[in-house]
Amino acid sequence: MTYQKIVVAGGGTLGSQIAYMSAYSGKDVTIWGRSAGSLDRAKARVARWEVEVQNYFKSSDELKNDTQKNLHYTTDLESALKDADLVIEVLPESVPTKEAFYEEFAKIADQKTIIVTNSSTLLPSVLADFTGRPEKFLGYHFANSIWRGNTAEIMPGKKTDPSLPATFVDFSREIKMVPIMVKKEQPGYILNSMLVPFLNSGSYLWVNEIAEPHDIDKTWMIATGSPMGPFAIMDLVGMNTVYEINHANPSETSQKVAEKIKAMIDAGKIGVESGEGFYNYPNPAYQANDFLKE
Amino acid sequence: MTYQKIVVAGGGTLGSQIAYMSAYSGKDVTIWGRSAGSLDRAKARVARWEVEVQNYFKSSDELKNDTQKNLHYTTDLESALKDADLVIEVLPESVPTKEAFYEEFAKIADQKTIIVTNSSTLLPSVLADFTGRPEKFLGYHFANSIWRGNTAEIMPGKKTDPSLPATFVDFSREIKMVPIMVKKEQPGYILNSMLVPFLNSGSYLWVNEIAEPHDIDKTWMIATGSPMGPFAIMDLVGMNTVYEINHANPSETSQKVAEKIKAMIDAGKIGVESGEGFYNYPNPAYQANDFLKE
Repeated sequence: MTYQKIVVAGGGTLGSQIAYMSAYSGKDVTIWGRSAGSLDRAKARVARWEVEVQNYFKSSDELKNDTQKNLHYTTDLESALKDADLVIEVLPESVPTKEAFYEEFAKIADQKTIIVTNSSTLLPSVLADFTGRPEKFLGYHFANSIWRGNTAEIMPGKKTDPSLPATFVDFSREIKMVPIMVKKEQPGYILNSMLVPFLNSGSYLWVNEIAEPHDIDKTWMIATGSPMGPFAIMDLVGMNTVYEINHANPSETSQKVAEKIKAMIDAGKIGVESGEGFYNYPNPAYQANDFLKE
Repeated sequence: MTYQKIVVAGGGTLGSQIAYMSAYSGKDVTIWGRSAGSLDRAKARVARWEVEVQNYFKSSDELKNDTQKNLHYTTDLESALKDADLVIEVLPESVPTKEAFYEEFAKIADQKTIIVTNSSTLLPSVLADFTGRPEKFLGYHFANSIWRGNTAEIMPGKKTDPSLPATFVDFSREIKMVPIMVKKEQPGYILNSMLVPFLNSGSYLWVNEIAEPHDIDKTWMIATGSPMGPFAIMDLVGMNTVYEINHANPSETSQKVAEKIKAMIDAGKIGVESGEGFYNYPNPAYQANDFLKE
């Protein structure tokens, strides 16, 4: 066993999923939130993951009840941190927000307590010194719907103790994640370092009117055997995120993509979530039997 | 019915596959080769596709025999072109080679005869004028193992008659291909416009020592549900092609990739074909049951 007493700082979508899966795997987990309101929202999310996880693993009611017992909520950081082995920070992607939290943590936490960030956009080295213990800090990145997209990318910063990443290989397995070792700092970790250029290459063909989204997806699906092409993935990710990624990229193509995605958002086509994006849901064309045959 | 009497110029891997699938689909097909030796090699390839196609479609011996009857071989271009509806040029990727063939074709062929190129690296506009009938010419690009990777990308050049591409939508279906319309010229068509950046993004993580190939593949497979990640695909494509693509790209990363791939080739690790590449074959680790679980 590696870390047993876990604090998850932040009960948003991923924070609540990480907390739930850790509690489900027998860890003693406390979700810390800034306010009673944020904890209420975290509880509502946990109730959703409870259903999804039970369906996914076909797990027993007993395990569901045990998980509930393992899961605690508090706005009191001092009591949350008492005797904590590990803090997983899943706060909004803002340096000042994380800095404020880490500085509070640094004052209170026991010297043994390890702290990691789930940030997907900020490298560990940007944040490490705020924690007061940069050698006990690294990046630890989850995909969405973590029971299914169960990779946990482990990324040391420049000051991380070289023996620390290996403990997260074990911890990841304990909470049913597949550990993926990122050997040094890389913006976007592994997944986004590949996914973003992939979505860009599909988008290029679309906005430059070389081919239609459905044909682009079909070509990729037939050639690689993948269940989705770039446009189906964009529908899943959601147009707001696709817009942000492109808007932040100064290339001419990305700016054109941002403009076209903005028009889709304005028309209410934000992807799976709104029932329409590049496909119509719940039965998108790319999942039809004949999509790959005609 | 669109085109019935077909000439396939060049009996290499793809030429012989295109010829076989066309004959299999009831077309009257002649493989034209420059020499008796090249036709002998084409016949040997056809014998392999015959087995593969029959296994793939579970087709009858009768159909196999009919296909044989539909398939002819000649070194005599004049007799091959007599009354031909369509010529599919699948010669080596060299402008002078194709130019010489097209000029011979232009002198002999009936005015009705349409001609297309399977070139994956030369745009139709580079070649069109050599044919003497640029309005009756377009790019028509197949994937490998065309009975399985059955896309046929249709790409008009600047002078292509606007009504011509649609006839290839029908023709593609007649020979059991899925037509993919590329609306204007694009180097790499659709598939390679996506596949090359995808393989590059994985290679970047590898040669810059950010992550190991198996971890990179695993991350992609879990996140997207794909049956292969970039390194499994490179093994399938073969290191010689991977080397060529990277060697031709002046970026620092591609040059590093080319160097590492060269070392693999020198060590006999050229991918699936040699039994070893990034994985060992015939039972590569990425196909093992627990690969995505640990």
